[in-house]
Amino acid sequence: MAGNSFGTLFKLTTFGESHGEAIGGIIEGCPPGIEIDLEAVQREMDRRKPGQSAIVTQRKEADEVKFLSGIFEGKTTGTPIGFVIHNSNQKSRDYDHIKDSYRPSHADYVYDQKYGFRDYRGGGRSSARETACRVVGGAIAKQFLRELKINAFVSQVGSITLNKKYQDIDLSLIDSNPVRCPDPETAAAMEDHIREVRKEGDTIGGVITGVLQQVPVGLGEPVFDKLHAQLGKAMLSINAVKGFEYGSGFDGVTMKGSEHNDAFNQDGSTKTNYSGGVQGGISNGMDIYFRVAFKPVATLIQPYETIDKEGNKVQAQGKGRHDPCVVPRAVPIVEAMAALVLADFLLLHRSLKP
Amino acid sequence: MAGNSFGTLFKLTTFGESHGEAIGGIIEGCPPGIEIDLEAVQREMDRRKPGQSAIVTQRKEADEVKFLSGIFEGKTTGTPIGFVIHNSNQKSRDYDHIKDSYRPSHADYVYDQKYGFRDYRGGGRSSARETACRVVGGAIAKQFLRELKINAFVSQVGSITLNKKYQDIDLSLIDSNPVRCPDPETAAAMEDHIREVRKEGDTIGGVITGVLQQVPVGLGEPVFDKLHAQLGKAMLSINAVKGFEYGSGFDGVTMKGSEHNDAFNQDGSTKTNYSGGVQGGISNGMDIYFRVAFKPVATLIQPYETIDKEGNKVQAQGKGRHDPCVVPRAVPIVEAMAALVLADFLLLHRSLKP
Amino acid sequence: MAGNSFGTLFKLTTFGESHGEAIGGIIEGCPPGIEIDLEAVQREMDRRKPGQSAIVTQRKEADEVKFLSGIFEGKTTGTPIGFVIHNSNQKSRDYDHIKDSYRPSHADYVYDQKYGFRDYRGGGRSSARETACRVVGGAIAKQFLRELKINAFVSQVGSITLNKKYQDIDLSLIDSNPVRCPDPETAAAMEDHIREVRKEGDTIGGVITGVLQQVPVGLGEPVFDKLHAQLGKAMLSINAVKGFEYGSGFDGVTMKGSEHNDAFNQDGSTKTNYSGGVQGGISNGMDIYFRVAFKPVATLIQPYETIDKEGNKVQAQGKGRHDPCVVPRAVPIVEAMAALVLADFLLLHRSLKP
Amino acid sequence: MAGNSFGTLFKLTTFGESHGEAIGGIIEGCPPGIEIDLEAVQREMDRRKPGQSAIVTQRKEADEVKFLSGIFEGKTTGTPIGFVIHNSNQKSRDYDHIKDSYRPSHADYVYDQKYGFRDYRGGGRSSARETACRVVGGAIAKQFLRELKINAFVSQVGSITLNKKYQDIDLSLIDSNPVRCPDPETAAAMEDHIREVRKEGDTIGGVITGVLQQVPVGLGEPVFDKLHAQLGKAMLSINAVKGFEYGSGFDGVTMKGSEHNDAFNQDGSTKTNYSGGVQGGISNGMDIYFRVAFKPVATLIQPYETIDKEGNKVQAQGKGRHDPCVVPRAVPIVEAMAALVLADFLLLHRSLKP
Repeated sequence: MAGNSFGTLFKLTTFGESHGEAIGGIIEGCPPGIEIDLEAVQREMDRRKPGQSAIVTQRKEADEVKFLSGIFEGKTTGTPIGFVIHNSNQKSRDYDHIKDSYRPSHADYVYDQKYGFRDYRGGGRSSARETACRVVGGAIAKQFLRELKINAFVSQVGSITLNKKYQDIDLSLIDSNPVRCPDPETAAAMEDHIREVRKEGDTIGGVITGVLQQVPVGLGEPVFDKLHAQLGKAMLSINAVKGFEYGSGFDGVTMKGSEHNDAFNQDGSTKTNYSGGVQGGISNGMDIYFRVAFKPVATLIQPYETIDKEGNKVQAQGKGRHDPCVVPRAVPIVEAMAALVLADFLLLHRSLKP
Repeated sequence: MAGNSFGTLFKLTTFGESHGEAIGGIIEGCPPGIEIDLEAVQREMDRRKPGQSAIVTQRKEADEVKFLSGIFEGKTTGTPIGFVIHNSNQKSRDYDHIKDSYRPSHADYVYDQKYGFRDYRGGGRSSARETACRVVGGAIAKQFLRELKINAFVSQVGSITLNKKYQDIDLSLIDSNPVRCPDPETAAAMEDHIREVRKEGDTIGGVITGVLQQVPVGLGEPVFDKLHAQLGKAMLSINAVKGFEYGSGFDGVTMKGSEHNDAFNQDGSTKTNYSGGVQGGISNGMDIYFRVAFKPVATLIQPYETIDKEGNKVQAQGKGRHDPCVVPRAVPIVEAMAALVLADFLLLHRSLKP
Repeated sequence: MAGNSFGTLFKLTTFGESHGEAIGGIIEGCPPGIEIDLEAVQREMDRRKPGQSAIVTQRKEADEVKFLSGIFEGKTTGTPIGFVIHNSNQKSRDYDHIKDSYRPSHADYVYDQKYGFRDYRGGGRSSARETACRVVGGAIAKQFLRELKINAFVSQVGSITLNKKYQDIDLSLIDSNPVRCPDPETAAAMEDHIREVRKEGDTIGGVITGVLQQVPVGLGEPVFDKLHAQLGKAMLSINAVKGFEYGSGFDGVTMKGSEHNDAFNQDGSTKTNYSGGVQGGISNGMDIYFRVAFKPVATLIQPYETIDKEGNKVQAQGKGRHDPCVVPRAVPIVEAMAALVLADFLLLHRSLKP
Repeated sequence: MAGNSFGTLFKLTTFGESHGEAIGGIIEGCPPGIEIDLEAVQREMDRRKPGQSAIVTQRKEADEVKFLSGIFEGKTTGTPIGFVIHNSNQKSRDYDHIKDSYRPSHADYVYDQKYGFRDYRGGGRSSARETACRVVGGAIAKQFLRELKINAFVSQVGSITLNKKYQDIDLSLIDSNPVRCPDPETAAAMEDHIREVRKEGDTIGGVITGVLQQVPVGLGEPVFDKLHAQLGKAMLSINAVKGFEYGSGFDGVTMKGSEHNDAFNQDGSTKTNYSGGVQGGISNGMDIYFRVAFKPVATLIQPYETIDKEGNKVQAQGKGRHDPCVVPRAVPIVEAMAALVLADFLLLHRSLKP
């Protein structure tokens, strides 16, 4: 299986299945001498952790990161940072029912087709458990990028939408409620909606908005590795993501060039920011903002009909402890992936300078 | 500058500025023994070419591809395919006015900031002229993937939208009109709209829908290089793209899991296809469909105010010959990038098999 | 720090310092369904382990590999194989004396210059302890390549040379003595020599010969990634290696083309094999053989003069438990790196075939 | 075919067959603002060119490099530098005799086995003509690395050896004779030997010594991408190379550690330099020196027996115009590859610094 790494110079490689002994990864390229606050890393892990509130899955995972290398006397040494997270709560029996049958809209079927063989427990490698490793990588990247502001928040759950521009929102409120929507009123409505959906054994989709501030001018590699292209790939690689847009996004389609163009101020900043902080694939110093669409979680706590390996129809029943809506826990993942993208482009950019 | 390559095994690397002597590239990894129809390659080039209709830029470029290696006696040899496209129409003087000033929502400013120096003629490396090389790469990939159906079409121009599912559309009509919208009535309305916008010296955005059919099950590398993540990056790397969604996309956000899940038929196909032909990052054999949002072209034929290198305000006037709407010419680019993504994943997938 | 990975499709990435909590790695790209004999992996580890005989370092390391992912019910799943090896014997105090001074011909000085900061305990990342991870990767690669014969042996220690062609040697005797020279008489002489050198607190160099048999025709990527170029890089990346030659090597320089050319038999094999099993960078089905030169270990158990961080002269004294000659323990490392090279080229080669 | 690129940040990708329309390449990552002396590039080309003296092949190739992008107003722009070299002298008929038969110790047989199909004219992609592109890439790298001294010279032809240390040689004499041996007396003997060998229709091997001076401390990425490992790969990827050693090399094997260790001076330089300017894979500021072994050219102007595609014995006769000894023309290639290695590591090193 290819595709376990993200980044060129600042690079995260991950391993692990949801119900194996451990998941983990290697962070390469973090420059030496960066002070690492291990508690800050764990705080990011806790934002993604199951069981953190009443509206997320009630699985219990300690999700404690153990660093094995690359940090010495509290600072990065420049060598690869290896880490593991043990899978403390492996209720594999919950998954016996899917050993030979395929859950709809999961990766069970395609893994069997592609690899001929799969670790069926809890989705194995295709499980979103893998994203815990991304949060570790992102937490290290954030500490390398201390001067940047990297934030994400829930802006939509089902049809409940936060109708404010990010500029008019107090981003310090993101973690003030379990939904991670920084508008308390909207957050409450979202929370209610998630509870209702869960009662039905059903699930619902959502949108996360990302805002990257204080990004230096010049990050991004034009042509194929444009900053927003890499950012889009980063987001689309997160489980359940169906769409990505930045700046004016899909709404920009209906605008005319004369409205959409961002006129310059004399300092190089722009009066408007439909560009979303990126021009020609390179950051221009303005805020980078983007939206990420998440589909409703595929695992329902309902009976359903599906097929087994031989193509026979079988009756199945969703079990286990699952998220009714993925976006509250996905906020730190979006931030982590954004941090990884920026850290990598920052290192690439540095190589230009004598 | 990094980021001039796309793909791991089937790989395109490009070079060239819009007003240099030539642009070109190298296609690596195309398996040996593939018959190459050079006229088919040129036909793809002609679909992207300036001057092909009244609603696109009237620049004249011969856009003739010259292959220099890798093809012998009409077939690929397995060695890298080098090619060049000479820039026949280099009206560099058209660009003297932007030598020292920055066009809004172009890459002029960020290139100067990042590289300290730029080839200012026609956008240089940031020009969409580079995409001609992608069309060459895609045309070769398409011939390698002869059994697949790779199509894209214009589904929106400004607010004029093709309100049909792709299944209800005759894709053979894509090239039947200059807009490349396969619904003649909608195409006519789009064409009118583009003409109006051009009269005003203005521009307008649009959406291209891609449909990939007969894709074998199993393509895509889970985790970071999911099929749709790489496809998204491919599309977002095209000039002027602001958003990407596949399958249910942003609309899937408001659905419940019980509606959104794609129930299996006994042959492994699914009754619905909200997944968009990809599950867990791997193709499942169903049609892959996606939408790509393009912003309005930034070059207007209007006077505007901007700044020069020293930050002084300057008056400028858009000149040259530009597209009022980019989507008609971007259709072959979207197809080319999709073909490159699929060709690469097909080769990666093959490496699994003894 | 870049450069922690080896391979393109079959890829090993390692992390870890000699005296941190653990070292480990991730093996990517191993095809699914390969049965893994964990005891065979451990046997390879034991061949490299300190303390295995009287002529190697007497450090004690359990060197037990713990696999964390990618193997399920005894077989590879195709997903990345994560593993760790805990550092059980971290006598860090042995290294306090080098905290602020630089050992001659070690990496201490250049690490401080490059990274500004280093984990000085036992050489940190520059320690040959990292090669334990290579042996794990190679052991998995060997199991994937079960039909190939991958062997290495000690052919020289100081001036004591095994004067036989590999064809005249019984390779099954490699592990019959602690030196890993398959000629018992020469092995005894080498062992005596190593003991003498150790008594003096000194060290001595050596040569390892590698022989790769049953390699299919067609492996290797011409031009920059020639089979022997990648093999050479693999060997030169092992600690203490100073030279690599294959086939006729440096001796081929004095031959004429008419002697050196390998005439064909009718089945495509060749009558002689000065080419060393590789032509134009691609395996031709003949035995691949090569020689790897190792310098004498730099750590002596003798007093020496050196400098500290400020450039002051200091007196120092080699301590700890070190190898008087590295080649006996390096044999499994050479085999491991060869296996990694072949596994990667085999996967790359497969991608050519429909 | 993979393997057409060399380098990570400063990267050369090449294409082209010896008798196709053109060969060429793309140089990526050269920082912007470097002044490019095109005549200096051509001088390097002329050092490698056929027909330059009486002791090399008498083929005539103009070998004129045409740059197509990435250089503007005499300076690099930071964008990829595309270039082509037209094949002016394509005597393809010279090669009809090898269309269906395999020349011994060439790549003909393995290409047919690997790709099933080959451009048989003059070796196609396996021809050393590809190295002309390396010289272009190296010439650009040299201009980026103006402050470094990158030299190579012929130190052995057959058994005729230059018995002087490089420190005792006047490197400015390298190009003073057609052999490129900076010792006039030895050069004369070498030249005589090459003439004799050629009279017999035979060929002879040789050794090139490389010396890299003024290399900053800190270049190289430890573990797998050690400076000398990448340098070794670079050299082994040159056609006809059979071995590589650096510093004490194979001779270091017989030394004791107490002799071999390089004691420090107080400024961090070392009293001796058996390390060859590299410790732990990182440059230490001392001279880097290495030796590269070239086999005798496989093409003889003699009759020989071989096999055809069906395995039948056939009589053949070497034709065409070939080099009796490859080393005089290989000197600029060795320098070019060394420059590419150093340029890449310099850029990687820069990314560490804020």
